[in-house]
Amino acid sequence: MGQYVAPIRDMQFVLHELLQVENELKQLPPHAEVDADIINQVLEEGGRFTSEVVFPLNHSGDREGCRLNQETHEVTTPKGFKEAYRQYIDAGWPSLSADPEYGGQGLPVVLNNAFYEMLNSSNQAWTMYPGLSHGAYECLHAHGTPEQKALYLSKLVSGEWTGTMCLTEPHCGTDLGMLRSKAEPQADGSYRITGGKIFISAGEHDMVENIVHLVLARLPDAPAGTKGISLFLVPKFIPNPDGSLGDRNRIFCGAIEEKMGIHGNSTCQMNMDGATGWLIGQPNKGLNAMFVMMNAARLGVGMQSLGLTEVAFQNALVYAKDRLQMRSLSGVKAPEKPADPIIVHPDVRRMLLTAKAYAEGGRAFSYYTALLIDRELNHPDEEVRKDAADQVALLTPIIKAFLTDNGWIATSEAMQVYGGHGFISEWGMEQYVRDSRINMIYEGTNTIQSLDLLGRKVLMDNGAKLRKFGAQVQAFVEENGTDEAMSEFITPLADLGDKVTKLTMEIGMKAFQNQDEVGAAAVPYLRVVGHLVFAYFFARMAKIALEKQDSGDSFYQSKLGTARFYFARLLPETAMLIRQARSGSASLMALDADLI
Amino acid sequence: MGQYVAPIRDMQFVLHELLQVENELKQLPPHAEVDADIINQVLEEGGRFTSEVVFPLNHSGDREGCRLNQETHEVTTPKGFKEAYRQYIDAGWPSLSADPEYGGQGLPVVLNNAFYEMLNSSNQAWTMYPGLSHGAYECLHAHGTPEQKALYLSKLVSGEWTGTMCLTEPHCGTDLGMLRSKAEPQADGSYRITGGKIFISAGEHDMVENIVHLVLARLPDAPAGTKGISLFLVPKFIPNPDGSLGDRNRIFCGAIEEKMGIHGNSTCQMNMDGATGWLIGQPNKGLNAMFVMMNAARLGVGMQSLGLTEVAFQNALVYAKDRLQMRSLSGVKAPEKPADPIIVHPDVRRMLLTAKAYAEGGRAFSYYTALLIDRELNHPDEEVRKDAADQVALLTPIIKAFLTDNGWIATSEAMQVYGGHGFISEWGMEQYVRDSRINMIYEGTNTIQSLDLLGRKVLMDNGAKLRKFGAQVQAFVEENGTDEAMSEFITPLADLGDKVTKLTMEIGMKAFQNQDEVGAAAVPYLRVVGHLVFAYFFARMAKIALEKQDSGDSFYQSKLGTARFYFARLLPETAMLIRQARSGSASLMALDADLI
Repeated sequence: MGQYVAPIRDMQFVLHELLQVENELKQLPPHAEVDADIINQVLEEGGRFTSEVVFPLNHSGDREGCRLNQETHEVTTPKGFKEAYRQYIDAGWPSLSADPEYGGQGLPVVLNNAFYEMLNSSNQAWTMYPGLSHGAYECLHAHGTPEQKALYLSKLVSGEWTGTMCLTEPHCGTDLGMLRSKAEPQADGSYRITGGKIFISAGEHDMVENIVHLVLARLPDAPAGTKGISLFLVPKFIPNPDGSLGDRNRIFCGAIEEKMGIHGNSTCQMNMDGATGWLIGQPNKGLNAMFVMMNAARLGVGMQSLGLTEVAFQNALVYAKDRLQMRSLSGVKAPEKPADPIIVHPDVRRMLLTAKAYAEGGRAFSYYTALLIDRELNHPDEEVRKDAADQVALLTPIIKAFLTDNGWIATSEAMQVYGGHGFISEWGMEQYVRDSRINMIYEGTNTIQSLDLLGRKVLMDNGAKLRKFGAQVQAFVEENGTDEAMSEFITPLADLGDKVTKLTMEIGMKAFQNQDEVGAAAVPYLRVVGHLVFAYFFARMAKIALEKQDSGDSFYQSKLGTARFYFARLLPETAMLIRQARSGSASLMALDADLI
Repeated sequence: MGQYVAPIRDMQFVLHELLQVENELKQLPPHAEVDADIINQVLEEGGRFTSEVVFPLNHSGDREGCRLNQETHEVTTPKGFKEAYRQYIDAGWPSLSADPEYGGQGLPVVLNNAFYEMLNSSNQAWTMYPGLSHGAYECLHAHGTPEQKALYLSKLVSGEWTGTMCLTEPHCGTDLGMLRSKAEPQADGSYRITGGKIFISAGEHDMVENIVHLVLARLPDAPAGTKGISLFLVPKFIPNPDGSLGDRNRIFCGAIEEKMGIHGNSTCQMNMDGATGWLIGQPNKGLNAMFVMMNAARLGVGMQSLGLTEVAFQNALVYAKDRLQMRSLSGVKAPEKPADPIIVHPDVRRMLLTAKAYAEGGRAFSYYTALLIDRELNHPDEEVRKDAADQVALLTPIIKAFLTDNGWIATSEAMQVYGGHGFISEWGMEQYVRDSRINMIYEGTNTIQSLDLLGRKVLMDNGAKLRKFGAQVQAFVEENGTDEAMSEFITPLADLGDKVTKLTMEIGMKAFQNQDEVGAAAVPYLRVVGHLVFAYFFARMAKIALEKQDSGDSFYQSKLGTARFYFARLLPETAMLIRQARSGSASLMALDADLI
């Protein structure tokens, strides 16, 4: 049933050689002591835990799925999930980057991110149970009252309880302004919450004794639309002040969805029939509070697809070296065998290298962004924090949409390497494709991400955030512009940088006339900027690889080959995307809806 | 559970207005009497049958799947499949384009093709049972002995028996030269066949009383490789000379595969343990005989994805008009509703129009090719037949690979229109994505199709076949080059034609040095040529639409809008593809396999 080996060497390359995280962390007081040894130890332990404990449950979890007992409203997770989760909390993994005040280990976000890559490679469906808890932790940490924090945070940090986000209702997903769930204030300061939620990942399960739901609902006097939404904490069991469990709350799972993938995770319809909840943050400001969680979740979704891209690549690579079929067109390569291994065929290599390049580019990009979050959270200089926050805001929608689109492409290419065997469940490849598909949808569809990027993050501040990132690219281009060995990377990078600048201005001008121009350009625009980020990181990685290619460590040859493949084969997508983004809204909007 | 309405108007447009099939059929003696009335009647009856009888079993068939009884080796198909098949043969559908000598109705291939589009839109898994029979019919018709024809053909034509293709073995799919199944001659002229086959679609099922397997195996004295493969007819029950069933033959289903999609079709492992078979055609010429079937099957696979593209589009369109979510960025469009229908959003339209354009382009292209097959089969002039055969040979791998890649893109975009609901089985959209995925793999992976196109069909005859098609494009360009209204279509079409010519020559030159250049360029090359074909047909359709746009029939406005969308948004993919195709083999082949 396939294999997963944590790509420790490449993770270390990104962390130590590309990002030089130790130098960065030295600037951040809470992490000043985090050195390479600690980082490498976490990577190695994490690699062992994820590949040995979590990965073996991936395929069986997909086959078995979750089961709801309609009478008790309890959900049974696939065999082994509960036990693996027990090991996970016993080993202290949930607390890795959590606040020491609540029992966390206080390690940097970037390290937790690397661990999540491994978890997602091993088993996306399983990882969503603790993954959503982490988001709930962050939201409560930022917006909870001291009492709420005292009662809930240490349970979430230890992993004894898990969390959910309850946003979507049947008639509203993207458009949360339409939501109908109601919260009526009670004399004791609590609220009585009524309504139905759908698509609640990990909404009900048997891995922990209590589940902390963060629920969006409306107060009786709330204004219409998104300005009338409040956030509530609704635990499955109402805890006593000492943290022990009290009464069962009136929030129940009514059904679990049959779906395309992530079968190991319970996607629940949750019914609240006068459930007891407590307000988090200010009345009618629930969306703001929830956005803390949503931004973390968007980065997390990008990591899900990075994980799937990596594991799909690894398996396809093993298969391509093993499977014998046809002879190389340029001459027999394995005369001692009845046919050549299929890795001799150029198009098989194209598929493999597509997945490899998307994994390695995604790793550099997402670790970089996670390190920016550490900077945003902990740098002593407010200017630096603000600057990091701006970059994170700019890059988050790109990570979410670009990495998940790439994951869809990469898992499908990796599956194709297997020919007919790729379509058969037994080989495990088709599951990666199915699992990866949801990542383009949830936590805001990729269209929504692209509108967030182009509309809110780029055009609303007249491109200021983008220019900051562009200045970084430009500095690298100038620094290396005279290095002949780097010109194969620098020339297309500089060229794309110029094109992004022009494209942004052009769309901005058109948008003054017609806001539909933003919607028409946003999706290809996001992918163009995604490629600019990838080209920048591949150029930086190539620079290191060029410097060390004669070191005797063949890792650098491999890295250089992947970078060259990226520039030759994947970057040309921008030629299409720029034409699409420039083609404007006319071809989309000209027809009456009834003529489509 | 969604809907399917046969797109009769667009089918008629392609058949009557674009291809003017009646004029063409008048040139073909067996079809000289086929007029518009007959064609329209078949379309309407076919639309009714497929949408009312076959479509309702699509989702339930996916959920239920097929079940193998391990003791009897019998497979039970999903509820309702058998009964629908009964109706199918009672109505005479299997015989539509079959030879009247064996009970067929002798209607043209192009009409059968249109019917198969509807069947595939309704239920790809179900359609594969009769679909494979049709291939077996064609193979036996071309290569069977008079006795074999007498005994088997009328049963296949009536649909009383179905057929299969038994090629793949566990260690060989693409590389049939490695196959191991053995056929030992017996005194009575039959053969004793032993071996195991995998991935046999419709290999065992309960819809008919007998199944006719066409099996590739090796004779005892056969040369190694593809030159030692013979084709055998191996019926499940050995028929008596009068067609009644005799002994159960020793060919049994050993297992059915769990797979990503097409759950309603039984994908069987078939074990032959001294099964009785009869040689079809010449010894050691089995692959040639099988290729008759395979070429028909490749066109058929393209039709599968065309069908899925159409039905996915239709459903997404209904949803996009119905689902209310957010307001249009360019101003409220439905003030009386709590939100605008999502079809107001440019990116939702991009997704819808992508599916629509791929459906309409694929329809024009595949019907055109089917009509060429009619010409190849029945034109009185041998030169014309030969010319048609050349075009079919050129276009078949493009239909297979381009339409199935497009189907994957289109079904995924259509699913994305639904947001989270797209991922949920209940809505039916995710099934289209899963079902469509196999079409890129079976009957020769899309990589194999691209090598067939570039290596065999284009470079091996120095581009002669391609030039013939190019001349047709060129003639259209010249004919319309001075028509200002057509320039938005003619300019990019002419430009792409030039680029394809240059690209072909460039790759051809490089291939002299290194055959891996063919493998490195083939996949993007095929898609470039696919777009040339689509651009040609969209330009032709736009010309008709321009002429009739003031006719009062809004169909032509719609067609014009789709053509404009195609040129603005989909054709730009060629800018990427040409760069990829030109990038050569270096970035793929430079790394040692161990460094990937």
